[in-house]
Amino acid sequence: MNYYSASISQLIEEFTKLPGIGRKTAQRLAFHVINMPIQDAHNLADAIVKAKENIKYCKVCTNLTDQEVCNICSDERRDPLLICVVEDPRDVVAMERTKEFKGYYHVLHGAISPLEGIGPEDIKIKELLVRLSAQSADEVIIATNPNIEGEATAMYLSKLLKPMGIKVSRIAHGIPVGGDLEYADEVTLTKALEGRREI
Amino acid sequence: MNYYSASISQLIEEFTKLPGIGRKTAQRLAFHVINMPIQDAHNLADAIVKAKENIKYCKVCTNLTDQEVCNICSDERRDPLLICVVEDPRDVVAMERTKEFKGYYHVLHGAISPLEGIGPEDIKIKELLVRLSAQSADEVIIATNPNIEGEATAMYLSKLLKPMGIKVSRIAHGIPVGGDLEYADEVTLTKALEGRREI
Repeated sequence: MNYYSASISQLIEEFTKLPGIGRKTAQRLAFHVINMPIQDAHNLADAIVKAKENIKYCKVCTNLTDQEVCNICSDERRDPLLICVVEDPRDVVAMERTKEFKGYYHVLHGAISPLEGIGPEDIKIKELLVRLSAQSADEVIIATNPNIEGEATAMYLSKLLKPMGIKVSRIAHGIPVGGDLEYADEVTLTKALEGRREI
Repeated sequence: MNYYSASISQLIEEFTKLPGIGRKTAQRLAFHVINMPIQDAHNLADAIVKAKENIKYCKVCTNLTDQEVCNICSDERRDPLLICVVEDPRDVVAMERTKEFKGYYHVLHGAISPLEGIGPEDIKIKELLVRLSAQSADEVIIATNPNIEGEATAMYLSKLLKPMGIKVSRIAHGIPVGGDLEYADEVTLTKALEGRREI
């Protein structure tokens, strides 16, 4: 594959390293870059370096931010006694989009997964414990993903936090809104039955 | 969408501008960049800027290259009397992959398209004429794409070059190898019939 000149090959190579970008897409992206105005190319390159260099963990919730304390943690109108634990910064965005949750967050950056060798010390659980020993909280909502790793993490956290006198809750599992019972898997349907509420 | 911090939003925004990259993919790419080693992020950014800054048109064939004259045009083992005209640098790579073509190329960087306002003066036809008046050629193979724009360009070039005493040929249209007659469209099948050869 040395049909392209060195600079193009190099760029295609770099794009191929990104997730979900195969060789064809990388070629398309590379030619797009070559045809874009020079200023746009610089903007893209700068954004990559800046994001990498400026982003750090929020001192309070360990979400990704370019400040010491992230926007959400510096928002004083929220309920300080309510903390929602999520796996990933993207989950914070998903929760925020509901506009229903008025508390603060804690981002674990992963979930416990013995299979992948990820233990409790590899994710931001220690930071949560330090935080909860320094501040009071009424309830910790665990919103890790509803898969084996997320459930294991939820169980682990629950066992750690309950002795501290904090109410620990888990987001509900069930049929998604707009979903179809016919196509729901057994586990989800079982969870939906277990979680039924009087109306 | 100001749930993300400024640097992340900016990076997502920049990725979204690339072709075929929607918001979800841009988010995934942005988080990948944030999690990659700093050196990799610099490599990616440098490759983008370098490709944009170093790439220019080959003086002979107008292909993209980082030298004055591209690798193919400086290869003296090729047949100087045979020139293949293609629309795009990627088409050169496609032709080279066949390992069958031993001549030189000319890259038009587009095709004539009155609908999109692309006339003969907007693509590298003038450069081809200058080249053919300076050097001799036995045959010009027109390998533009088999669509309306490609055919129009082929006809236009043919009318320009034939009076110069150059043999002009067009790549064959027909059923692709491994294709299925049942699913071939009428136009392709008609072309395949027209182009039939005695065996």
